[in-house]
Amino acid sequence: MPDANPYALLFEPVRIGPVTARNRFFQVPHCTGLGHLRPRADAGVRGMKAAGGWAVVSNQETEIHPSSDLTPFPEGRLWDARDIPALRLMTDAVHEQGALAAIQLAHNGNHANNHLSRAPLLAPSEMSVDSTMPKHARAMDKADIREFRRWHRDAALRAKEAGADIIYVYAGHSMSIAQHFMLPHMNTRSDEYGGSLENRVRLARELLEDTREAVGDTCAVAFRFAIDEMQGADGMQAAEEGRAVVELLSDLPDLWDVNVSGWDNDSMTTRFQLEDGYQNEALAFVKQMTGKPVVGVGRLTSPDLMVSMVKKGIVDLIGAARPSIADPFLPTKIKEGRIDEIRECIGCNICVASDNLGIPIRCTQNPTMGEEWRRGWHPEIISAKGEENEVLVIGSGPAGLECAMQMARRGYEVTLAEASSEFGGRVARESRLPGLSAWNRVKDYRLNDLSQRGNVRMFTDSPLDAAQVAELGVVNVFVATGAHWRRDGVGRNTQRNVPLIEPDARILTPDDILSGQTPAAGPVLVYDDDHIYLAGVIAEQLAVSGMQVILVTPESLVSSFTVNTLEQHRIQARLIELGVDIHCNKTLASLDSNGATLSCVFTGKPMQVSCESAVLVTERVRDIALHAALKPLGLTTLKLIGDAAQPGLIVDAVFSGHRAAREFERPRQDTDKDWFRREIIDLREETS
Amino acid sequence: MPDANPYALLFEPVRIGPVTARNRFFQVPHCTGLGHLRPRADAGVRGMKAAGGWAVVSNQETEIHPSSDLTPFPEGRLWDARDIPALRLMTDAVHEQGALAAIQLAHNGNHANNHLSRAPLLAPSEMSVDSTMPKHARAMDKADIREFRRWHRDAALRAKEAGADIIYVYAGHSMSIAQHFMLPHMNTRSDEYGGSLENRVRLARELLEDTREAVGDTCAVAFRFAIDEMQGADGMQAAEEGRAVVELLSDLPDLWDVNVSGWDNDSMTTRFQLEDGYQNEALAFVKQMTGKPVVGVGRLTSPDLMVSMVKKGIVDLIGAARPSIADPFLPTKIKEGRIDEIRECIGCNICVASDNLGIPIRCTQNPTMGEEWRRGWHPEIISAKGEENEVLVIGSGPAGLECAMQMARRGYEVTLAEASSEFGGRVARESRLPGLSAWNRVKDYRLNDLSQRGNVRMFTDSPLDAAQVAELGVVNVFVATGAHWRRDGVGRNTQRNVPLIEPDARILTPDDILSGQTPAAGPVLVYDDDHIYLAGVIAEQLAVSGMQVILVTPESLVSSFTVNTLEQHRIQARLIELGVDIHCNKTLASLDSNGATLSCVFTGKPMQVSCESAVLVTERVRDIALHAALKPLGLTTLKLIGDAAQPGLIVDAVFSGHRAAREFERPRQDTDKDWFRREIIDLREETS
Repeated sequence: MPDANPYALLFEPVRIGPVTARNRFFQVPHCTGLGHLRPRADAGVRGMKAAGGWAVVSNQETEIHPSSDLTPFPEGRLWDARDIPALRLMTDAVHEQGALAAIQLAHNGNHANNHLSRAPLLAPSEMSVDSTMPKHARAMDKADIREFRRWHRDAALRAKEAGADIIYVYAGHSMSIAQHFMLPHMNTRSDEYGGSLENRVRLARELLEDTREAVGDTCAVAFRFAIDEMQGADGMQAAEEGRAVVELLSDLPDLWDVNVSGWDNDSMTTRFQLEDGYQNEALAFVKQMTGKPVVGVGRLTSPDLMVSMVKKGIVDLIGAARPSIADPFLPTKIKEGRIDEIRECIGCNICVASDNLGIPIRCTQNPTMGEEWRRGWHPEIISAKGEENEVLVIGSGPAGLECAMQMARRGYEVTLAEASSEFGGRVARESRLPGLSAWNRVKDYRLNDLSQRGNVRMFTDSPLDAAQVAELGVVNVFVATGAHWRRDGVGRNTQRNVPLIEPDARILTPDDILSGQTPAAGPVLVYDDDHIYLAGVIAEQLAVSGMQVILVTPESLVSSFTVNTLEQHRIQARLIELGVDIHCNKTLASLDSNGATLSCVFTGKPMQVSCESAVLVTERVRDIALHAALKPLGLTTLKLIGDAAQPGLIVDAVFSGHRAAREFERPRQDTDKDWFRREIIDLREETS
Repeated sequence: MPDANPYALLFEPVRIGPVTARNRFFQVPHCTGLGHLRPRADAGVRGMKAAGGWAVVSNQETEIHPSSDLTPFPEGRLWDARDIPALRLMTDAVHEQGALAAIQLAHNGNHANNHLSRAPLLAPSEMSVDSTMPKHARAMDKADIREFRRWHRDAALRAKEAGADIIYVYAGHSMSIAQHFMLPHMNTRSDEYGGSLENRVRLARELLEDTREAVGDTCAVAFRFAIDEMQGADGMQAAEEGRAVVELLSDLPDLWDVNVSGWDNDSMTTRFQLEDGYQNEALAFVKQMTGKPVVGVGRLTSPDLMVSMVKKGIVDLIGAARPSIADPFLPTKIKEGRIDEIRECIGCNICVASDNLGIPIRCTQNPTMGEEWRRGWHPEIISAKGEENEVLVIGSGPAGLECAMQMARRGYEVTLAEASSEFGGRVARESRLPGLSAWNRVKDYRLNDLSQRGNVRMFTDSPLDAAQVAELGVVNVFVATGAHWRRDGVGRNTQRNVPLIEPDARILTPDDILSGQTPAAGPVLVYDDDHIYLAGVIAEQLAVSGMQVILVTPESLVSSFTVNTLEQHRIQARLIELGVDIHCNKTLASLDSNGATLSCVFTGKPMQVSCESAVLVTERVRDIALHAALKPLGLTTLKLIGDAAQPGLIVDAVFSGHRAAREFERPRQDTDKDWFRREIIDLREETS
């Protein structure tokens, strides 16, 4: 009898050198902002992936030596034996769930800054560091190369001792010395490590050989390699030298983990690359050049696509970073045929932003991400209800939906009341903006879940006032009424000098735009004192619709926060290409029917701009009137969640709704303790 | 007989509430980038200040609760009892040297981001956070205020348990909730905490009362208060509400620690504020309003000024952050009349930059800063020489001078050879640029020291070649030959697309400018792919000289690194005021005798600019020809130091010279170990 599961192919074991993956699901290395500063939290993340069915769970780039010191960013660290116990927490957590643990050794060359160690910076040739820091790297001489190889080998031995089943040699993301040697614009050497491709690949080859020799008896040696720099003829291309590198090294690694560089090309947001599997074209050739298994990525969440990728011979293993963050139980759900229960990555790169900020990983879709150890949260399990029976959730934005869904899972009778004619709140509205359609998955996943539960009643077009809530008789009420955008121009940069807005000025807010209003004909000024994504997206939409758009921001970059999500350069490029007139470093001083006066943030010098109307994207005000009106009712529970509690990103709203559901019927003295749980420095005398 | 020491006044004890400072030298709270992540290193810094004679040594702003979580920046932390042992390391280190230890409690309100804790953000009124993060703070209600007071009180009790003699209530730098309540643009409340000044000061008063009540029996209660926001009529002014606040609270604190806000006004660089004592005018009134001792700051390093400030009744205690970093032994040197041995702060704010980057503190003048624990370095003590007797230092820039000075202190016979006609290298040259004159102190301090030592021979106008070095017969040679600026336009952003520079293009480098060359008449383009300070300073000099200057940079801000030194806004303002034509977000594509083609970093779109000449500030090349020529001599020691080893900031060069001197005659296996010494996370089970 044929296997009933159409995805059975994905659950075949795959031999990787001396170890065997139980299926084809492979969490490739990804950063967490936890690393060596928060090793228990990191182990919590990785162990949960293993529990969710991933066959291989990797850690993140792991510094092998003080000359690759990424301080203040907490990545992996394996400088010496003192670091082994922290990494063993991770491998133990992964092994306990029957998965293989991989450790990605990294020497970041001139991508490091060595801010803590103050060790010399190393590169194939003399050059500045790959940052705006005032540092230069020196060209490695032969002694440096010998030492580097010894450090790498020693780190491999430590990784093995820490329990790794797979040990990575890293040549990707423009972040690794082994890759730096391959790239002609970084390697101008005239010795046997420079010049011909074979010479430029020599160091990677030696690292692979060294690693196999050191640990290959029991550990698989993986090679993470960026086959294309996505710079066209100005960089390594998959069709040319990328292919030649794979041919040269062919069967030397036990596993090829291939992707594209830089990180912004590897981890594309859905705003700029909606389709998953977007790296398939680049990596399709790899399996033809090697007999060893290949893992590839591309924000893969569709099991049908995964099967087709294996069947077509593109990959042997389904690689994932972001999809495994959004849903650690992705493999289990596919195995069990629970496809519609997959929490699909929305490609917003908030996870990436966390790492870029040096803070713990967060996920818009999965509010438990990063909270496995600290709060003991499990993405699929939540405690059953206590004494109370019935709850009312008012508002169906991301906080309301998440809260309602988790409360339903806990077993309460849930009523979800939405004032407008559609569920989803800001998620539904914002996902209609250009490039943000995938964000609707936040709504879709939760609505799908809620719609299948017998203990949930959901209503649109149901604005409630206090009297109606009282009439309902539910004594546990969560208020997720959101926030609205200010209309007075006050924001981060104008608290002290409030813009003078004349009554005749034609003003819109993002809420107006999201509800379908269009500005008056003629030039429209979009003023961004929010600095996240919204003003940039609105400017894009207005420009695409044919309007003449002037974007003004006190920041020096458009949508400056999106540097952290690796999108900023694409956003500003798109707006320039659309002809948007961009004025950075300017605050809004005044606005009337003729236009605006801007003020230079450096000198205060005024500047006039003509416009017919203005969209003010500055700051939000919480919609808490209903909450205030409910206070006198003396409800058992009356809790603000989401933007109504604290305006933030969608990730914050989902977290807020989730947390409220977890904490319901838990005493506050217990829930407050979660804030205090953290990892602190060991003050004992050093033993090594 | 009158006291022979003209500075005896500075060594009178001062009573501060229940404790007594042994003299008037008071290290006010300052950040170190060490904090709760590197508590032993922090204790090392503070203990050294106490050893150097400071009567009071403070820690840094210390988070009292998870709702004031400054992650990823490692400040002090005192969330609960688990944090006490780390802080006790600091107070013990201070007490061992006979000084008083102060702990600065802080709740940062909307200046925090709570990235780790995810706790709600708090402010007097609803507003965004004081950063570009996507977060809002909520207006504190009465319950919030009650809780906040409880947190503060509990933290004060923990600070006392940790050994603090002085406990701070913090209302400064626009970084503290107690100050936020005072400011009308942040406090729009209508209850008894808003409106009148008395109402806006209520929270600070309550905190002072609470703290005194909780710990005042044995601990002094200090109040750190920004008396002027330096915003003119748009902010709190010393002459108006600043004065009124002091009058209102008068004798409530045991100590007034007064300064101006924000941090950029408090910690002015010498580039924008050359004179020390620059806060005296603002703070002169304070002592008239209170009977309690007053401490003030203003980059105070002159003992004569200090005495006059006490005599004039401006302050009772000489506050210092940066001067105590540059010279922890400042009080001792004044006491012992060794005035010319003071290592004066140059006001470069590299210490501040370290904190802004979340990395360990560094000091240009004091290379031991931050290395007291890790490397066991003492700013005034270095081990005596070993077997070797004689050393040659080639080059007298910051690395050469520091190396020569420390080697002389160790007792070696030192020859210092400078090729040019003046000592000081880049320090001598750069300090002639506008605003950088104080940087010469790096040279002056070291030359003064060297000139008084019998075991030092110093020569200018002494370029050496290998044969001459061989002839000298010295077998231990340190090569500090520096680096020069590239002339080909290659820098961080043009490695892949090297600028096309026609032979007829009139090009200068910073070296040309520093050696006195002036560009051809007509517009000059300054291209900055360095992003630190130099291109901005050169543009300023050229503009001041009357030239038409076009500044081009691939960054979105002029001299973008100087955001970290708190100068960027002043630099860009100055250049705008001087009429410099600024083009950000542009790389240099080509250059010929007519001008330049720039390329938009977002779109690649070209742009033509006319200019007669160009100054290329991109990247440096190490001058290591002599080093290479010396290799065949088979010297016992041949070591590159400073920019010749790794081009960087002056702070890096001084460190490099210092480290080389420390490590001379120490086996490499020992010295390399220093890199690995660090503080790691405690993996034991939590006990609390």
